[in-house]
Amino acid sequence: MLKIAIVGYGNLGKSLEKETQKNTETELVAVYSRREINHPRYRPMKEIGKKQDFDVAMLALGSYSDIESYANAFENIDTVDSFDTHAKIAEYKAYLNSVKKESLAIISTGWDPGLLSLARAVFGIGATEYATLWGEGVSQGHSNAIRAIPGVLDAVQFTVPKADALTRVSKGVTDGKLLHDRICYVACVENDKKEIEKQILSMPNYFEGYTTVVHFVSQQEVRELKRRTHHRGQVICTGEGFEANCTVTLDNNPDYTAKIMLAYAHALPQLKADGYRGAVDVFDIPMKYLASATML
Amino acid sequence: MLKIAIVGYGNLGKSLEKETQKNTETELVAVYSRREINHPRYRPMKEIGKKQDFDVAMLALGSYSDIESYANAFENIDTVDSFDTHAKIAEYKAYLNSVKKESLAIISTGWDPGLLSLARAVFGIGATEYATLWGEGVSQGHSNAIRAIPGVLDAVQFTVPKADALTRVSKGVTDGKLLHDRICYVACVENDKKEIEKQILSMPNYFEGYTTVVHFVSQQEVRELKRRTHHRGQVICTGEGFEANCTVTLDNNPDYTAKIMLAYAHALPQLKADGYRGAVDVFDIPMKYLASATML
Repeated sequence: MLKIAIVGYGNLGKSLEKETQKNTETELVAVYSRREINHPRYRPMKEIGKKQDFDVAMLALGSYSDIESYANAFENIDTVDSFDTHAKIAEYKAYLNSVKKESLAIISTGWDPGLLSLARAVFGIGATEYATLWGEGVSQGHSNAIRAIPGVLDAVQFTVPKADALTRVSKGVTDGKLLHDRICYVACVENDKKEIEKQILSMPNYFEGYTTVVHFVSQQEVRELKRRTHHRGQVICTGEGFEANCTVTLDNNPDYTAKIMLAYAHALPQLKADGYRGAVDVFDIPMKYLASATML
Repeated sequence: MLKIAIVGYGNLGKSLEKETQKNTETELVAVYSRREINHPRYRPMKEIGKKQDFDVAMLALGSYSDIESYANAFENIDTVDSFDTHAKIAEYKAYLNSVKKESLAIISTGWDPGLLSLARAVFGIGATEYATLWGEGVSQGHSNAIRAIPGVLDAVQFTVPKADALTRVSKGVTDGKLLHDRICYVACVENDKKEIEKQILSMPNYFEGYTTVVHFVSQQEVRELKRRTHHRGQVICTGEGFEANCTVTLDNNPDYTAKIMLAYAHALPQLKADGYRGAVDVFDIPMKYLASATML
C-alpha cells in the first residue's frame, strides 16, 4: 500500500485523487492546499513538513508559479511532479539536487515532458531530426502561467498545430515555435487588458516567439472552454532510411498526467531501495522500474 | 574513438561495417567469421578472446543458432547484440549474467526487441492493453532460424499482419499469433521438403501457433526475395481515455538494427565507468546514456 499526499487541489490534484481511488494499492493520506478546502484529508499548505505519515507527495501545482517556490519545503519528503517548463528542467533539477540529500524527487513525469520525451529519446536513436506536435488541446502549464499574471481572473490556452505542420516537419522544420499557434482565452479586469496581453506575448519559454492570439472573454466562457480536456501529442523522428511516428490521443489531460505520475510514484520505493537520491527525471530511470520484462 | 569488432559477416555484419564507416567516432578493428572471408580485417572465429585490441564486439550472429553457442567465448569482452527470441531473453540474460563478471553485455538492442520494447514500456504506463504488429517485412531472426535447419540451402521469412489486424487489436486481441501470418520461402534439397516443413511449423517461439505458410522455391528466388529489406513495426497501447500508437517504417532492416546497436555501443564506455556489469537489456539502461537532456 503506497500512502500518498496530494499537494495542490486544482485539475491535476483532483485527477490524482480520482486515480488514487481507482487504485487499490494506493491510499490517500492528505490533500495540501493554499485555499481552505472542504475535504476530509485537507491540510493547510504551510503545514507541509510537519507531519510525514505518507510515502510520497504528488506535486499538483502550476509549474511556472508554484513548484519552484514550494520545492524547498520538500527537502526531506519524496516527491513526484510534472514540472513542464522544458527550458527550465535542467535548472529546476540542479536546484532540487542541491536541497534534497536523503529524499528523492521524480520530476517532469507527465506525458510531455515525460512519455513523449522518452519517445523522442528512443526513436531519436540513429535519427538525424525529430519534431513534436502538440494539440489541439489545452496546455495546463501555459494556462497556469497566464493565470499567474496579476489581474487575470481565469484563463485557458489551446495549443494548435499549424495547418501545414506535418508538411513543415517533412521539410525539416523542427522548431515548435514554427509548428504551433497558441490561442489564449483570458478573463480579466477590464482596464488590465493591454498590460496582460503584453505580458503574455513576451513571456519567455511559454509564449515569446510563438504566434500567440489572446482573446478576452468572460469568466463563464473560460469555465466552459476548460471542459475541453482532450489533448494530443505526436513525435516524429526521421533518419537515413527510416521514420518513426508516435501519436498519443487523450480524452482527459489531467487524468492521463495523474496516471503517469502515479506509475512513477509506485516505482519510488524500489528506486529508493536501490539507492536513488536527489532529483531524477524520466531519462534517469530505467524502464525496468515501470514495465514488466515480458514487454521486452 | 570507439574500437569495434564485428562478429559474423552476414547481412547484419555488413550493415554494421557500413554504419561504422559512416561514423567518424568508430573504428573497425576486426571482423570475425566462421567462413574464411576476403576482408582486410578478417580473423577466424576460433581466435575470439586471443587478442583484445577493441572496445566492444558487435554480435551479428543469428540468435537462434549462434549467439547462445558463442556467448561463453565473450566472457571477458564487452558485447552488444540483437538477440531477438523474445521468449528466451530472460534465460539468455541469466546465462550471460552467470558467465560475465567484469565485462558488460548489452543484449536485445535491435528495433524489436529494442526500440519497440521501449515503446511498449513507455506507452504501457497507465495502459490496460498493448499489442504489436510487425511487417510486412523480412524477419532476420525467423529467416536465420529456418536456415539453421539441416537440409535448408537458403530461406527468407516475411511477417505479414493479418488484413484485419487493427480491427482485432481494437477488439482486444493482443496475441501476436492471432495478428500475423508467417510466410516462408525455402530453398532445400528436394527429398527433405516434408521434414523441413514439419520442423518449421513446429518450431517453438518462432512458428508454433502461428498461421505459417511454407513455399519451396529455388535458391535464386530466395536471393531475389532477400533484396526486400524494408520492414515496419507498430505498437498500440490503450487505456481508459487514451490511445498511443507508435509506428516505425524502415527501408533496410539490418541497416537500422546496425544503427541502434552502434548507438548502444557508444553508450558502453560510460555504462562501464558507472559500474554496469553482466547482462543488461534496454529496460536496464536509462535513456540518459543515449539521448540529450534537451530532448526532455
